[in-house]
Amino acid sequence: MAKKLQQMTQEELKAFYQEALKEYEECKAKGLKLDMSRGKPGRAQVSISDDMFDIDIRQHMISDGIDIGNYGGFDGLPCCKRYFADLLGVQEDEVFAGGNASLNLMYDTISKAYTHGLLRSPEPWCKLDKVKWLCPAPGYDRHFKVSQSFGMELITVPMTEEGPDMDMVEELVKDPAVKGIWCVPKFSNPDGIVYSEEVVNRIAALKPAAPDFVIMWDNAYCVHEFQGEFVPFSDIITLCREAGRPDMVFEFASTSKVTYPGAGIACFAASKENVAYMKKLMSIQTIGFDKMNQLRHVLYLKDKEHTIAHMKKHAEFMKPKFDLVEEWLSREIAPLGIGHWHKPLGGYFVSFFALPGCAKRTNELAKEAGVVMTGAGATYPYGIDPEDSNLRIAPSYPPLEELREAMAVFCACVKLAAAEHMLNN
Amino acid sequence: MAKKLQQMTQEELKAFYQEALKEYEECKAKGLKLDMSRGKPGRAQVSISDDMFDIDIRQHMISDGIDIGNYGGFDGLPCCKRYFADLLGVQEDEVFAGGNASLNLMYDTISKAYTHGLLRSPEPWCKLDKVKWLCPAPGYDRHFKVSQSFGMELITVPMTEEGPDMDMVEELVKDPAVKGIWCVPKFSNPDGIVYSEEVVNRIAALKPAAPDFVIMWDNAYCVHEFQGEFVPFSDIITLCREAGRPDMVFEFASTSKVTYPGAGIACFAASKENVAYMKKLMSIQTIGFDKMNQLRHVLYLKDKEHTIAHMKKHAEFMKPKFDLVEEWLSREIAPLGIGHWHKPLGGYFVSFFALPGCAKRTNELAKEAGVVMTGAGATYPYGIDPEDSNLRIAPSYPPLEELREAMAVFCACVKLAAAEHMLNN
Repeated sequence: MAKKLQQMTQEELKAFYQEALKEYEECKAKGLKLDMSRGKPGRAQVSISDDMFDIDIRQHMISDGIDIGNYGGFDGLPCCKRYFADLLGVQEDEVFAGGNASLNLMYDTISKAYTHGLLRSPEPWCKLDKVKWLCPAPGYDRHFKVSQSFGMELITVPMTEEGPDMDMVEELVKDPAVKGIWCVPKFSNPDGIVYSEEVVNRIAALKPAAPDFVIMWDNAYCVHEFQGEFVPFSDIITLCREAGRPDMVFEFASTSKVTYPGAGIACFAASKENVAYMKKLMSIQTIGFDKMNQLRHVLYLKDKEHTIAHMKKHAEFMKPKFDLVEEWLSREIAPLGIGHWHKPLGGYFVSFFALPGCAKRTNELAKEAGVVMTGAGATYPYGIDPEDSNLRIAPSYPPLEELREAMAVFCACVKLAAAEHMLNN
Repeated sequence: MAKKLQQMTQEELKAFYQEALKEYEECKAKGLKLDMSRGKPGRAQVSISDDMFDIDIRQHMISDGIDIGNYGGFDGLPCCKRYFADLLGVQEDEVFAGGNASLNLMYDTISKAYTHGLLRSPEPWCKLDKVKWLCPAPGYDRHFKVSQSFGMELITVPMTEEGPDMDMVEELVKDPAVKGIWCVPKFSNPDGIVYSEEVVNRIAALKPAAPDFVIMWDNAYCVHEFQGEFVPFSDIITLCREAGRPDMVFEFASTSKVTYPGAGIACFAASKENVAYMKKLMSIQTIGFDKMNQLRHVLYLKDKEHTIAHMKKHAEFMKPKFDLVEEWLSREIAPLGIGHWHKPLGGYFVSFFALPGCAKRTNELAKEAGVVMTGAGATYPYGIDPEDSNLRIAPSYPPLEELREAMAVFCACVKLAAAEHMLNN
């Protein structure tokens, strides 16, 4: 049984450092070139959807009376809206089915808040001196960057095992300058935490001072269990409506991690009034999205039940990878007391907390040894982790054998960085 | 030979009116339901690209080393950039290849000018009291609506047979509040006018007071001749560079009217510096566009030469329709002196000028007789045609036999509206 670094004598620490250094140098000598930086599936996993192209789309050119190869139906094919409605547990007329990227829909929602205002906005946000935004962290770097790009003041809200710290959120939304919050409610990016029912209910029951406060509910991993059966999840659209603030939320989803990252279909769901308002604005922006791809997807994925069955095939690739991460961290790191993490049952990441002050160094060491990871700090607003502790492990892309090598490097780096830190502090 | 209405006696006019009314009522009695409102191809024409789906995209999942089924390559597949570069006569690194809609790219360019500013903007446009915009008219209603949606002051610039009135444009750009101009340089929407070399050169040589003045060069019909051979056209990107203002122009194109409206691929072309600047902003907005559709299109359309050959198939559908419009207008309207138009050799529209004060009434009569056309005034800023004269005829959608009926209705309406007008004024 390994001794925790905190319990070691200075001499033991020095010996541990030497051993960690040796382990690290051995890793480095292998001259690896591995990527654990982004949450994307590997080539073999991507190809499980290739039978989608057995569908000859030419045999299906008319859908609900709409010519899918021509202009029209700019808010999405009815069948596509029905598909997403089924997937998310909302109503068909609460769905806007778009293009290949939910991030694009999120960005456009924020962008329109700035240029035109949201449904309940007294004025466009660009007219305001300050817009503040709540960022549960660790969180998704691309969310934070959208907010940052528009010059918002980002406020970090700590994540708990149940979701964002709701005491803090409830306090913060009393400030009318606080205009919204990013949420990845199921298998949060990167922690893999599923918001508890209580947290979801408290979010839906928020009474923000800003009339146009908006919950950006990125349900990116709504059917993305890789361990165990599909776990049903509350529908935020209905909850907000029942709580009397139906227009306070936009939910987003896509098939980027169901079929093809970057070539799937995406949607947002919101109150009928929100959908109508956004449609008015979006009808200026586009004549419509790719209905051929929408229909191809619906014919292939059919419905929620069939989609969940399809996700089992993804799980076959994902579970062994996450098991491997768990195995290495449990064996190499946990006993030393130099890191902790939440064990996810779905999603794409493991959120690893190194000893405070060690994340950047760990990342740097890994990079030098040929393992690229998401930049340390990226999971926090402005890319600054105040504790310099969090590291996002994205094990999905490398094949299993490469992932094993990458985890060996990673664990060696965590150990070396921890030893350095404890010797120097 | 018919007599011109202007030359008729009051009695002759009354007789003409009665005849026109009878002709119109006969049309109306047919109970037609025809659509000449939008520039979109009919079902049979759309289907000429269906052999694109003979390509099994699964056999081509790696392109220039990029996995087209995964994230990455957010500015477009290299082969797709090369394709558009060939099509437009620009360089590969002057191209950003996007999603299915060039309108979306145009909107986003304007939107980013408001929220972030363009490359040469001293500040985002949302910080300005007033933004003025030049709108050559008749023009494309969706262009004008984008500008209007952002609260710009739209300034009408009359179209001549050679393009926008350049004396006026050169004068107007001396105002630093004038930030840009919409142009459809080849087969302009709706006139079908090809800007003359002199006009294009004068546009490229503009020296606007606003450092971030932008030419929105919508080359929607760059290979869309339906009569005669492909006519080469000057490359505005090069011309602006040579004139010393390389960052003054964004060019847009798509395959919406080459393959599938709404399911094609689109791009913008601009100076390398502009592309770099926009990429920085757009990397926040999206992880990437649909590379599978990009590659499918490139494999199918191959290059400019092959695309021009493909456009010949479109011309087979388009030419008879435009011939028919020409035939009806020449026979029924021209001799009466109650309308004129430019005869287009490409594009999607015939821009018909009724007697001043007659467009709305003509449109209304057509609607009552079951023929839907683009709303009168739509071709002018704010939807207001000061002369109430212009009507956009979009003959591409209805089959030839329906188009014949629609033109019979249209000509009857033009005659009746003209007769009413002359009797009442």
